[in-house]
Amino acid sequence: MTITICRPEVVVDLEICRTNIRLMATKAQSAGLIFRPHFKTHQSRAIGGIFREMGVQAITVSSVSMARYFFDDGWNDILIAFPLNLREWDALPQPCENKSLGLLISDPDVIMRLPAELPQSQYFLLELDTGQGRSGLAADNFAGILEAVNLCDRKNLPLRGFLFHDGHSYQSVNPQGIARVRGYTLGLIRDLRIKLSETFPGREFLFSGGDTPTCSLDNRYDGIDEIRPGNFVFYDLMQWRLGSCSLTDIAARLVCPVVAVYPDRNRLVVYGGAIHLGKDSLEESDGRRIYGLPINHNSGCGSESSQARVVSLSQEHGVIEAPSSFIRRFRAGDLIDILPVHSCLMVSMARQILDTRGQKMDTLYGHFTDYP
Amino acid sequence: MTITICRPEVVVDLEICRTNIRLMATKAQSAGLIFRPHFKTHQSRAIGGIFREMGVQAITVSSVSMARYFFDDGWNDILIAFPLNLREWDALPQPCENKSLGLLISDPDVIMRLPAELPQSQYFLLELDTGQGRSGLAADNFAGILEAVNLCDRKNLPLRGFLFHDGHSYQSVNPQGIARVRGYTLGLIRDLRIKLSETFPGREFLFSGGDTPTCSLDNRYDGIDEIRPGNFVFYDLMQWRLGSCSLTDIAARLVCPVVAVYPDRNRLVVYGGAIHLGKDSLEESDGRRIYGLPINHNSGCGSESSQARVVSLSQEHGVIEAPSSFIRRFRAGDLIDILPVHSCLMVSMARQILDTRGQKMDTLYGHFTDYP
Repeated sequence: MTITICRPEVVVDLEICRTNIRLMATKAQSAGLIFRPHFKTHQSRAIGGIFREMGVQAITVSSVSMARYFFDDGWNDILIAFPLNLREWDALPQPCENKSLGLLISDPDVIMRLPAELPQSQYFLLELDTGQGRSGLAADNFAGILEAVNLCDRKNLPLRGFLFHDGHSYQSVNPQGIARVRGYTLGLIRDLRIKLSETFPGREFLFSGGDTPTCSLDNRYDGIDEIRPGNFVFYDLMQWRLGSCSLTDIAARLVCPVVAVYPDRNRLVVYGGAIHLGKDSLEESDGRRIYGLPINHNSGCGSESSQARVVSLSQEHGVIEAPSSFIRRFRAGDLIDILPVHSCLMVSMARQILDTRGQKMDTLYGHFTDYP
Repeated sequence: MTITICRPEVVVDLEICRTNIRLMATKAQSAGLIFRPHFKTHQSRAIGGIFREMGVQAITVSSVSMARYFFDDGWNDILIAFPLNLREWDALPQPCENKSLGLLISDPDVIMRLPAELPQSQYFLLELDTGQGRSGLAADNFAGILEAVNLCDRKNLPLRGFLFHDGHSYQSVNPQGIARVRGYTLGLIRDLRIKLSETFPGREFLFSGGDTPTCSLDNRYDGIDEIRPGNFVFYDLMQWRLGSCSLTDIAARLVCPVVAVYPDRNRLVVYGGAIHLGKDSLEESDGRRIYGLPINHNSGCGSESSQARVVSLSQEHGVIEAPSSFIRRFRAGDLIDILPVHSCLMVSMARQILDTRGQKMDTLYGHFTDYP
């Protein structure tokens, strides 16, 4: 990397992205699944273009602005996988013929509040809670689910099926934990499908679910029609800790100027703080929290930096602790790269994203006046 | 508040701001201190204007972009209280005559690397570490400090004095903890001042230090010439927990659309997540972490909401837990206000800030193409 960097910058290795995308697309294809990747991780038309090259046609986003940004880039099949916000009803994109906009109902009360006439392009999914306890109807509450389906039918709402997100898989500590979460969810889905087929014989319901940990680590998709992983495009330390990826699969890093070096304290300070990396952290085996993993600028993850850690973040400061042999190799004015704990959060806060040649990529953020 | 809000919005009550500013400005004046408030908390020319009305002339910022944004608004005396980043040397503002730009040296190695000819407008402060362990020379390492001062002198660097930040005061749990931190720092400063006056008789050194907790809770300023609190303009739950303010002093809130209501789980979900509130949290007495305090929209902090808490944040989701009597008062499409744990972080991530009449305020963020 020979680009000029003066301030903290998110740099993405598109070759790693491409590999990550190819692997996941191939996996989905082999399993006969609809691959509807979540684009909130990158929010970039440039990276969207790589997905398109791999044959992806359907995508997931998490906001109305993001849906508009990608519709305007020629994507024709977009699902907003966030509970439908009635206050943004009028701001929803109105895609023209042959385009499709999926909306998520997480609270049946919302069904009652929708207009009688809906745009042709819209379809709906009911959100199921498979154990995270965040949003959606409990997946084992068939009475509640049935009531919601009937309500959709009475309102002539085009209900395509169900969506779930195993967000609690992120609380796991290893692949076995992920497998347990997945196994439990598959059981819920199987039971629900049986009950639905008894109650609505012959009617098809789509089941959409599958995040980065489960899709990276578990190949069981019984009863699932569509997967929506997002994070895998960049991966991050959280995924690495879960076992979803290796460090060399992590495609996004924060490149930071070193601003002060203190070998006697085994520390150095970088320009790169909470507003750049986000405050997500991992717990180390000794109970300490880490906020990022420093690696040598423009290099792979050599053994020399294996003990370096980002141990605290202020608004703009990042503090790196490492053996003094590591610290002494830096002077103020050098650059150091940090692998993020949570790439989605880092990228969503970044005013711009660069590729490894220093080219600025097209991102939603850069268009924030067009897509506020 | 009768403004139309469709998405999570940061709303600031300028009357509360004004009161917070007046109290701190009066305190500084009574104590004979230079009041150089930190503007990173608000990053807004509109709020800067209130400070100006109160007679403030000197300000602190945390980035080169912020310095440029406020110089262009007519501020003439700006200190960048972040370790001087050599990679941004050429991007530093070049204020014209009678304007002044303060720069912070946190690593003496940086002194060696500065050009021989410096702009007239620049002055320098040496950063002291008074116990936080983040950046600066240890305040009790007189040999190291002396060496750095001599180095500045040999390089003809206009060294005005010293800066410290008692960031570890934020780790306190009560006013007594804050007082201990302050007392320890005042002892360090006293000792250093004695040694400096013996070594450099007759020479004046400025001492700049004082953050929101210490300036809100402790009135001892012996040996301190200048204070730089910032957070007090909005305050937040972290400051409330420390005892620096009451809940009604908190001037910034996130107004969030309710998107799903689950009375049977004692939960509701809002549009408002980690990208809006930040991931800073407070630990409750039962060990649970909270990410914000919900209050009724457009109201003070009534007792009914006293048990409501933001218990988790995803990228865009916020989950509020409360007694079902509280939860049942909301429907999807309503608004709920959340007091932030850390207002600086929330505001620095907000694409816009509104006042209580819904007017968009001028912020650095809104000018990000001019001040990248």
